[in-house]
Amino acid sequence: MVFESELDGHKLIMDAPGAAGGKDKGPRPKPLMLSALAGCTGMDVVGMLNKMRVDLKGFNINIEAETTDEVPKHYKKIKVIYEFLGTDLPKDKLEKAVELSREKYCGVSHVYKQVIEMDYEIRVKES
Amino acid sequence: MVFESELDGHKLIMDAPGAAGGKDKGPRPKPLMLSALAGCTGMDVVGMLNKMRVDLKGFNINIEAETTDEVPKHYKKIKVIYEFLGTDLPKDKLEKAVELSREKYCGVSHVYKQVIEMDYEIRVKES
Repeated sequence: MVFESELDGHKLIMDAPGAAGGKDKGPRPKPLMLSALAGCTGMDVVGMLNKMRVDLKGFNINIEAETTDEVPKHYKKIKVIYEFLGTDLPKDKLEKAVELSREKYCGVSHVYKQVIEMDYEIRVKES
Repeated sequence: MVFESELDGHKLIMDAPGAAGGKDKGPRPKPLMLSALAGCTGMDVVGMLNKMRVDLKGFNINIEAETTDEVPKHYKKIKVIYEFLGTDLPKDKLEKAVELSREKYCGVSHVYKQVIEMDYEIRVKES
């Protein structure tokens, strides 16, 4: 069940868990859909906030996703939680950047949102 | 632009290319959509062919994908090329396994095919 994927000159190992005949040598394939989404919207947002001169001390994206029980087991709900760390961060700019990524720039969101129920949340932490 | 993703206890680094303000420390996020697809359908197919007692010497998946030019830049066409290596492989079983993955089992295909034009090809190499 081990698959090696080559992407932009980088190697990525995928594997199934032990219970499914694999050896857990890498992540499962399906959740890579979520990494694609996190990276896509994350780079959008950081790029825009840089241009807006917003000084972030840190930035995390957590994704909560729910799959169907029936086959084909696929994501039916995805919630993207954007967590910004910094001092006196301008909430309007954070919201604007997230909105522009979700609605306009992120090509991964664009595909998923036509099939999957998508939700998001913005969290701000003083630091 | 470097993002570290944690998946099933495995770490995955994503990054943008130099031209986009990154340092190429890992793959771009969007093509991870293709790795997710390759791994998902690949594990399905290998699992089914094992059950059908088909003896593969090797198995590769190549994906050709085309994105839109306009924003949001997203995949509009994806072609999955299944390449099987072995001796006197039973083509009907290879086709059956690929079809079952595409139509019934692969939860990644299930999402993409509702939005993206999907195509596939089966190649067999004697070895």
